[in-house]
Amino acid sequence: MPRWEHGSADRLKQAAMELFEEQGFDATSAVQIADRARVTTRTFFRYFPDKEEVLFADAEALNEALTQKLLQTPDVAKPLPAILRTLAGYDWASLGPLDVQRRRAALIASDPLLLERDLVKQQQLADGFRNALSRRGVDPEVAELAANTATQVFRIAYRQWLDGNGDPTLAAATDTAMSLLATIVPRTRRVANQRTALGKTDE
Amino acid sequence: MPRWEHGSADRLKQAAMELFEEQGFDATSAVQIADRARVTTRTFFRYFPDKEEVLFADAEALNEALTQKLLQTPDVAKPLPAILRTLAGYDWASLGPLDVQRRRAALIASDPLLLERDLVKQQQLADGFRNALSRRGVDPEVAELAANTATQVFRIAYRQWLDGNGDPTLAAATDTAMSLLATIVPRTRRVANQRTALGKTDE
Repeated sequence: MPRWEHGSADRLKQAAMELFEEQGFDATSAVQIADRARVTTRTFFRYFPDKEEVLFADAEALNEALTQKLLQTPDVAKPLPAILRTLAGYDWASLGPLDVQRRRAALIASDPLLLERDLVKQQQLADGFRNALSRRGVDPEVAELAANTATQVFRIAYRQWLDGNGDPTLAAATDTAMSLLATIVPRTRRVANQRTALGKTDE
Repeated sequence: MPRWEHGSADRLKQAAMELFEEQGFDATSAVQIADRARVTTRTFFRYFPDKEEVLFADAEALNEALTQKLLQTPDVAKPLPAILRTLAGYDWASLGPLDVQRRRAALIASDPLLLERDLVKQQQLADGFRNALSRRGVDPEVAELAANTATQVFRIAYRQWLDGNGDPTLAAATDTAMSLLATIVPRTRRVANQRTALGKTDE
């Protein structure tokens, strides 16, 4: 690999962020990103299948790391908190400065195609958690519901953490989001059937 | 519109299901679907932007109907049960015979592109609920968490209803899924911070 290609992926990521912010995601092409990063278009496509993917370059490694962490967690008897501890305990700052993560989040929110890609990545993460829980012996339906719900809860916590520039901490933001979930999940066993045996409504 | 085009959309839907099942989603083209439905390829694309969308033809109308129903529900003080009642109370049988809905679900599960499209549709439904709750004065974060969680819970209930061929009823399956969620959401306010003031773990 020629010397000028050293750090190409990082340069491509930075160039893409700049161009998306300057002229919008839609108006930016892979060719332009490659130009700004001083690599060939061919090099761009060696690293990324499309321009969306530049913003999700870390997703696979993150997914793998988090799934491994959940697989090794001592106790998954309470799978929802176990996943949230796994997520909140990860060193998210290692993904880059908070400011860059915030800019990335704003970019994703700005475009339907990026939101769609983000949704797919979130589901892949949830699927990783679900598989890890299943391998740990958790009932498949519990595993699915815990994995999907935990990623929804963490999504809110992560956004609050970014919006607050790191204060509250991610652990505290996760606690808050988890408490919010606890307040909206009813204790009653009947939600869809509105009537009790006495013909009264549940609520 | 020429007489032979009457019912084109329905014929296209049926032809697509047959071909997807016979030869797989990947191997089937819009041209083949149009041929089997005895319409031109141009007619296909007048009804559907791509072959994925044939399986989601009802999504927009469903979304609109459910969002309207939630907007008109008397009480949204408990938003999660309110959404689940809205979902469980809908006449899902109106979308077609249970057998056809089950075949459709199996097709979606068989292909990553269809799973992705399904994910997008589910999020659009959740976004509709979130907007409806916001318009009813529910706190934005509560609205988002309730909408996203409710659609996850209902997804499980709907699958059980299909798998059980209508028994349990959808209302009963929704109750069961909701109870499952209640069992995995901890009462404690601390999940991410593992230690209490005394240095003991929460669980």
